[in-house]
Amino acid sequence: MHDFASNSIQDLQEYMSQLRKKYDEFKAKGLSYNMSRGKPCTEQLDLSMKMLDYPNSSDSCISVDGTDCRNYGGVDGLPEVKELFSQMLEVSTNEIIIGGNSSLNLMHDTIARAIIHGVYGSELTWGKLPKVKFLCPSPGYDRHFAICELFDIEMINIDMNSDGPDMEAVEKYVREDESIKGIWCIPKYSNPDGITYSDEVVDRLASMVTKAKDFRIFWDNAYVVHHLSDKHDQLKNILEACKAAGNPDRVFIFTSTSKLSFSGAGISMFAASENNINYTRKQISVQTIGPDKINQLRHVHFFKSMQDIEQHMKKHASILKPKFDIVLNVLESELSGKNIAWWNRPNGGYFISFNTMDGCAKAVVAMAAEAGITLTAAGATFPYGKDPRDRNIRLAPSYPSLDELKTAIEVFCICVQLVSLEKIINQKNIG
Amino acid sequence: MHDFASNSIQDLQEYMSQLRKKYDEFKAKGLSYNMSRGKPCTEQLDLSMKMLDYPNSSDSCISVDGTDCRNYGGVDGLPEVKELFSQMLEVSTNEIIIGGNSSLNLMHDTIARAIIHGVYGSELTWGKLPKVKFLCPSPGYDRHFAICELFDIEMINIDMNSDGPDMEAVEKYVREDESIKGIWCIPKYSNPDGITYSDEVVDRLASMVTKAKDFRIFWDNAYVVHHLSDKHDQLKNILEACKAAGNPDRVFIFTSTSKLSFSGAGISMFAASENNINYTRKQISVQTIGPDKINQLRHVHFFKSMQDIEQHMKKHASILKPKFDIVLNVLESELSGKNIAWWNRPNGGYFISFNTMDGCAKAVVAMAAEAGITLTAAGATFPYGKDPRDRNIRLAPSYPSLDELKTAIEVFCICVQLVSLEKIINQKNIG
Repeated sequence: MHDFASNSIQDLQEYMSQLRKKYDEFKAKGLSYNMSRGKPCTEQLDLSMKMLDYPNSSDSCISVDGTDCRNYGGVDGLPEVKELFSQMLEVSTNEIIIGGNSSLNLMHDTIARAIIHGVYGSELTWGKLPKVKFLCPSPGYDRHFAICELFDIEMINIDMNSDGPDMEAVEKYVREDESIKGIWCIPKYSNPDGITYSDEVVDRLASMVTKAKDFRIFWDNAYVVHHLSDKHDQLKNILEACKAAGNPDRVFIFTSTSKLSFSGAGISMFAASENNINYTRKQISVQTIGPDKINQLRHVHFFKSMQDIEQHMKKHASILKPKFDIVLNVLESELSGKNIAWWNRPNGGYFISFNTMDGCAKAVVAMAAEAGITLTAAGATFPYGKDPRDRNIRLAPSYPSLDELKTAIEVFCICVQLVSLEKIINQKNIG
Repeated sequence: MHDFASNSIQDLQEYMSQLRKKYDEFKAKGLSYNMSRGKPCTEQLDLSMKMLDYPNSSDSCISVDGTDCRNYGGVDGLPEVKELFSQMLEVSTNEIIIGGNSSLNLMHDTIARAIIHGVYGSELTWGKLPKVKFLCPSPGYDRHFAICELFDIEMINIDMNSDGPDMEAVEKYVREDESIKGIWCIPKYSNPDGITYSDEVVDRLASMVTKAKDFRIFWDNAYVVHHLSDKHDQLKNILEACKAAGNPDRVFIFTSTSKLSFSGAGISMFAASENNINYTRKQISVQTIGPDKINQLRHVHFFKSMQDIEQHMKKHASILKPKFDIVLNVLESELSGKNIAWWNRPNGGYFISFNTMDGCAKAVVAMAAEAGITLTAAGATFPYGKDPRDRNIRLAPSYPSLDELKTAIEVFCICVQLVSLEKIINQKNIG
């Protein structure tokens, strides 16, 4: 059946009852599949198991600069670790700090520090201001939004275009409103849209006029090397762009190895101008005795070079790509041409961003849940959990097996159609 | 030479020139020994090397509750880790959160959260108050004081007695001043005094009347199992004491395995009432994707029980005890009876707290440094780095070898005598 809306109510109702029957059959199976989070699957985690063999009890745990990694000392990372991951982020070794096991933790703490101490160049700490606001290109990452909520930072929705955030809107907001202190960006293979910011967007972010002198771009480059195929998106270097635009201190860059090695047992990185790095290092020196250096050794022994990382990421892709393909193929075969759903085909990252007709996302997610398919909560990809058009659903194909995925996405497509049909039939009845 | 002050100026000057000669001889040797920090020595770190063999690439990394520790999930620790370390801290498994690699980080973040969000039961966040003050029993731990300085928390000196902080002073302050929100305590084998709080002190801390309703005891139980011999100090359970006194939410307990396994690559713990734990867990869930669970597995595989921990700590003691003994023996032979210095003989912990005559500590540390012996900076054991009597020096015997220690402490004793002699001779001349 093509474009649903062009069919008669009778035909739609008949098709609906066929779908309803299929749905009930699936429901009777007592399925329990989870496509809600960007979790690597077991096969992906297995790729890094050799990392656990070094250092072992017969190794020395000494870093290139002679540091015994089993003892106290060093708050910003081993030299060899900075060397490797500064290449991954395309910054200098003076522009990077190696953190603990969670880049989310670095982002949270960066905002906490801004509130209590301000950022480099702040005239007032953010906590002393009556109001702090962040721009939130959406759909986006729910955990970014949760940090803003925790700190009572007001979030402003910015539409996502195919080349990044709506820069017209971004530029207008930051030019006019001094209380806007930051913007969340996932610039490469974005969560959930899977798009990569264009050079123009990067340049405009770097050069735009901001009323707040201590405005910061929170550049969560979580998927920097997470390609799905040999077709790699290219992202312009934001730190260089900021320097070129005369705003060298504008950007805070974050990433981690959570989806290279182990999720939750990897290492995280913070990159920025030397001014920002020196300012932050001073605070970190009081906050902690420093990150786990043995885990850093583990990582640079397993990943000796960017070539190693690239080869390793190809192995991840060979596991992930078929999963994305199966989802995309089922979506294509079940939904295309019906004019009820739209989705992206990302070249990397962990998600497929799916849009229903307006006002259908919540109902689809609820219906899928009833049949045992757990999806990311509708609305989660927007600030305050509120999708203004109730249409975006984030599909996370990484964790389930291919068989599970196929079934899950079939059930999902049935739910999308049933909810859409109900809406279309209602509209026709009203019309 | 006995009691210096009872000798003639001439005798003292003669003795001084002998010592000066010895000092110059040591100085000419170009020594470079460091007794400044409580760092475990290489032999201590070697005790835990077997920990690095598990999990390796052939292990499953699955926790007792089925969690794949290589993947996301879980913010407050694996069940088996809570089980073990709740025993160490004598709390229930619902009263503990397992953190990352740094208990200092937990303490810092606990205060940061109190400033931004308040603690459980706060009417106002601490950041909204015109002034926040902490009581600082001193001598104490410089890193506690550094956290207060970072957050602009005013520190109030409290004298340390042989059974803990001067409770008369503590009770008076907290009863009268609402802006006093906390007290730093290292209750067992304290840093640097090596004393353990008496039951009476614990009970008084638990039951005292505080004007601030959200007052907290920061109970840094860093040396909970760090005995130096079979003679163990006993510390009363503060959480139980707080519950018994009707103040169950008053205490925040911290510790880590930094001096059990590896310093900076261990795991940390936070223990408190369930109200406090639930309140904190909610915030941590936004802050981080959770601590490194693989490192948790490593620890509970190596330490299967409290018996394992106790046996392991005996091995640490067998390395540390001779170091403490050599320092104490040299102090005894060189300084006792001269009435110019006083020191403790701790049953555990990492330090010997040494007091010179008033006004001599800085000069002694500077003189030792000139001869290549690095000591903890004089004043570091007090808030703002200011020892009001300029007399306390923290000696950290753990890191240097026995030979190095012997020489270092000999030089130190010469410095103490030279500085004291100068003071005594000056006084006599004036007198």
